[in-house]
Amino acid sequence: MITLLTDFGLSDPYAGIMKGVIGTIDPAAVIVDLTHDIPARDVQGAAYALFPAFSYFPKGSIHVVVVDPGVGGARKILALAAGGHVFLAPDNGVLTLIFQNDAVESLFSVENVRYFRQPVSRTFHGRDIFAPVAAHLHKGLRLEKLGPPVAAADCVLLDLPRPRTIPGREIRGAVVRVDRFGNLITNIRDSHVAETFAGSAPRFLTVTVRNRAIRGLSGTYGDAPAEQLLALCGSSGWIEIAVSQGSAAAFCGAGAGTPVVMTVAPDGNP
Amino acid sequence: MITLLTDFGLSDPYAGIMKGVIGTIDPAAVIVDLTHDIPARDVQGAAYALFPAFSYFPKGSIHVVVVDPGVGGARKILALAAGGHVFLAPDNGVLTLIFQNDAVESLFSVENVRYFRQPVSRTFHGRDIFAPVAAHLHKGLRLEKLGPPVAAADCVLLDLPRPRTIPGREIRGAVVRVDRFGNLITNIRDSHVAETFAGSAPRFLTVTVRNRAIRGLSGTYGDAPAEQLLALCGSSGWIEIAVSQGSAAAFCGAGAGTPVVMTVAPDGNP
Amino acid sequence: MITLLTDFGLSDPYAGIMKGVIGTIDPAAVIVDLTHDIPARDVQGAAYALFPAFSYFPKGSIHVVVVDPGVGGARKILALAAGGHVFLAPDNGVLTLIFQNDAVESLFSVENVRYFRQPVSRTFHGRDIFAPVAAHLHKGLRLEKLGPPVAAADCVLLDLPRPRTIPGREIRGAVVRVDRFGNLITNIRDSHVAETFAGSAPRFLTVTVRNRAIRGLSGTYGDAPAEQLLALCGSSGWIEIAVSQGSAAAFCGAGAGTPVVMTVAPDGNP
Repeated sequence: MITLLTDFGLSDPYAGIMKGVIGTIDPAAVIVDLTHDIPARDVQGAAYALFPAFSYFPKGSIHVVVVDPGVGGARKILALAAGGHVFLAPDNGVLTLIFQNDAVESLFSVENVRYFRQPVSRTFHGRDIFAPVAAHLHKGLRLEKLGPPVAAADCVLLDLPRPRTIPGREIRGAVVRVDRFGNLITNIRDSHVAETFAGSAPRFLTVTVRNRAIRGLSGTYGDAPAEQLLALCGSSGWIEIAVSQGSAAAFCGAGAGTPVVMTVAPDGNP
Repeated sequence: MITLLTDFGLSDPYAGIMKGVIGTIDPAAVIVDLTHDIPARDVQGAAYALFPAFSYFPKGSIHVVVVDPGVGGARKILALAAGGHVFLAPDNGVLTLIFQNDAVESLFSVENVRYFRQPVSRTFHGRDIFAPVAAHLHKGLRLEKLGPPVAAADCVLLDLPRPRTIPGREIRGAVVRVDRFGNLITNIRDSHVAETFAGSAPRFLTVTVRNRAIRGLSGTYGDAPAEQLLALCGSSGWIEIAVSQGSAAAFCGAGAGTPVVMTVAPDGNP
Repeated sequence: MITLLTDFGLSDPYAGIMKGVIGTIDPAAVIVDLTHDIPARDVQGAAYALFPAFSYFPKGSIHVVVVDPGVGGARKILALAAGGHVFLAPDNGVLTLIFQNDAVESLFSVENVRYFRQPVSRTFHGRDIFAPVAAHLHKGLRLEKLGPPVAAADCVLLDLPRPRTIPGREIRGAVVRVDRFGNLITNIRDSHVAETFAGSAPRFLTVTVRNRAIRGLSGTYGDAPAEQLLALCGSSGWIEIAVSQGSAAAFCGAGAGTPVVMTVAPDGNP
């Protein structure tokens, strides 16, 4: 499978054009849209959308990320094999979470014009480089044919906000994203919670946002009465704050960047 | 074919993730989006979107509905065979119009964890239950393998607003939906009109909305001069109110819930 | 491949229904959305979206355009073979740029009800005519089976705004579209520039919009400092105005219809 993740939106035919180019080279390719609604040029937003999604596709899938404010400039295009998957993306940090969490198997700079559409526009590499290269990879082209190897250490990494933890006491994180339901997705992972509050039952944890203390972690959205705040570990492993039958973002006046603190009750110590 | 109908929106990768899970189990599945833009948790809206759409797909298609505010709670997940199609949906009323209009062939509660993704998140059953079960059904799994049979009478039905009719005199209905063109889609069906005004020619009927009387039913949107109200029987069999070259919703200040009355002129009696 | 270009939006299931109808007739059809977000009834917008997109699909692809305010009325439906591609569209001008730029191979009026869904609604020809006819064409039906031949000269053409040129001196054009990035896409093509300013280097050209003069044509969006206006020849051959890392539309207060003038510096004459 080939997945597409862009900031092209769906009002212009750009994403469709990429599919036409892929289908011209490999009619057998199955193409899935991850999303085209990343805000224009929001590399960090794309990084957060890609990471929790890619692993649900078949091993060997090719994930094409075109959130590329530097298109046509000096930035490299990366072809990365990691975690059993292949990623094609500009070297602008959009693969940060993949680099930090998955074992790099191989990594190349995409430079071999033989696999590009000609002529190559300087403003639409999605059509002229990413799409044809993805199609050739899907047909079986080996990554090393695309260009010279690159060291992961030389690639751009985003300085993503990480939570600060005091073992046994607290985690200070932040909201990184609001989803369509108004859920506040934080940068605190289940692993942070397990490491920081090792052994404490979820009911002894407290999540605080905008001076509101939410006691205990719920299992799902319906575990609190309607219109009431709750916190839970979301389906991708991030702590999130929700309102049953409503929007936590509206309820709290919170959004990306809002601090979120987790603490443990004294009697919750193991 | 497998169709998807959710309230996930297209900005988050949730719908794409479901396709990845399906494709991992059955790479041959053809997946079509009905829509992912059902307003968050709008079970009734999903019911109205599913019903006029499913029958245009090949017999045996699997229609997956994930508008599921009770995810992870006590609600059942239903696998329904009806009208030659298969439906996977939470037992929250989203299948009401199917139950009321199509013959139930078989009906099961989806409980067999063998066909689920593991581990099953409590907040994203679309990914962990609906998608893998749909893929297994597409590969040929029989419905009865999914869990115990359920009686249709035990399933949740929505109390959808139905028009009140006085035979030979009037139908009192309401707008249930406004489409992208500003057309007001009502809950009055062609069959209500045929039964109530049996034999009356469409030109003798009057549709009244917001104190504006529209005389006669038109055949299509261009049958009235531009910027003028008209009423017609839409492509799915529901009476709708439109403005030629414009928006009836804006023109009338009407929306979901606005009363709509149909009457017949005395000289229109058969 | 079959592509779809409509003004149906993605909130209603109309586009999905078309895919169901196509898949019922030809399960092997690969369907790609160009866009469904053309503003309601915006025939000109659809013409501008179709033209730069279709040629990136495989030869023989079938491009279905349903932006059709005259649905159910007297307008014809055209089946056009041109430039190695097939187009199904209402005869309302949406194919204007194809007629003006690609060699017509054959052209028919779609009238043969044998290839329609029955009954044919008067308000949803996308479902009842366009989709089934596209599927039959994809299965190999020859265009001449669809109805009588039509002369291109008898088809509706839009009076699209064309730039006025004074050779060696200036081009007076206009913005025709704003894309998701806020880029102002004009109706000035690379060929206009080449013909009008033959031999002048891009750095001697000046593009003026809203009294702001942009000196020289850039190669890509990052060629100017952030927050600064630049002009370039876009990936589809149209001159566009952009702001590096920002929105030119917001920066200039410009939109569709805003005049854009290109001139050449005296020392830029060849």
